Amino acid sequence: MKYGIAVFPSKKVQDVANSYRKRYDPHYALIPPHITMKEAFEAEEDQIESEIIPQLREIAKNTEPFSYGVYKVSSFSPVTNTIYLKIEPSDEIFDLNDKLYTGVLPEEKDFAFVPHITIAQKLSDEEFSDVYGSLTMLKFDLQDQVDRFQLLYQLENGAWSVYETFRLGRG
Amino acid sequence: MKYGIAVFPSKKVQDVANSYRKRYDPHYALIPPHITMKEAFEAEEDQIESEIIPQLREIAKNTEPFSYGVYKVSSFSPVTNTIYLKIEPSDEIFDLNDKLYTGVLPEEKDFAFVPHITIAQKLSDEEFSDVYGSLTMLKFDLQDQVDRFQLLYQLENGAWSVYETFRLGRG
Repeated sequence: MKYGIAVFPSKKVQDVANSYRKRYDPHYALIPPHITMKEAFEAEEDQIESEIIPQLREIAKNTEPFSYGVYKVSSFSPVTNTIYLKIEPSDEIFDLNDKLYTGVLPEEKDFAFVPHITIAQKLSDEEFSDVYGSLTMLKFDLQDQVDRFQLLYQLENGAWSVYETFRLGRG
Repeated sequence: MKYGIAVFPSKKVQDVANSYRKRYDPHYALIPPHITMKEAFEAEEDQIESEIIPQLREIAKNTEPFSYGVYKVSSFSPVTNTIYLKIEPSDEIFDLNDKLYTGVLPEEKDFAFVPHITIAQKLSDEEFSDVYGSLTMLKFDLQDQVDRFQLLYQLENGAWSVYETFRLGRG
């Protein structure tokens, strides 16, 4: 089964992200707005229960909740036409990402970690220019907190279902 | 904010439900297939953290995981044109439902609890006759387990985001 680890922002931030995703993100219906904390990985259910969840509990227990800000959009262009709400980088979010690639957790990383909330993807080059041109003018002033992360699995239709929640700083 | 409590079936059962929901359920994109364990209710975030989550932890701790079977579809017709995978009733699932209407949890119940996974809704009467006529012929033999429930909140677009997971039989 395919698993992933994500942080869901507060409702306030999710609503802002969805106002753009609705128009520009074909994954709008597959998962709520999120910060991908670990790229999707394959695992057996047995291993999830016996090894991975215990380690995720440990990581959560040893990580304090932290704040982040969102002030503007950015893009992965020219690699992809993805546009995202940029999460202001912090040591805390990079540390959490690092921890999620240790121990029994798959360590392969296809990309350097860029904390973000996708709001547009799979746009044609022309659409991208138009949309990015207008979104890049926007200024946000969103303050939010990461106090949990979630382990999800992917259904056959591509949608993601939450399997378990891990609260930061809790046993 | 609007909250709800649901059980998400295993991937196997979710995939079966989605194969019908895709065609017949306009809520397909708003939430994965689920068993609603408590009708949506309004609450303040403060109250969720200070009162409701602690009680949900207690309920989860004092409820053992239990099995259920899905063998056929049924419908709420003529009240609504909703068609669902019928969860074979068990004392355990009714007990859990009862507990979720006690203490600080809102006690209003608009409907008698009928454990189910919706696969079609908001059909016209004509569509309903056609679809129900064919789905009602289906036989399933799905065995699944409830070992957790989830507290969700609703976003402005109508989609539901998981706030926390509660494992049955755990402190």
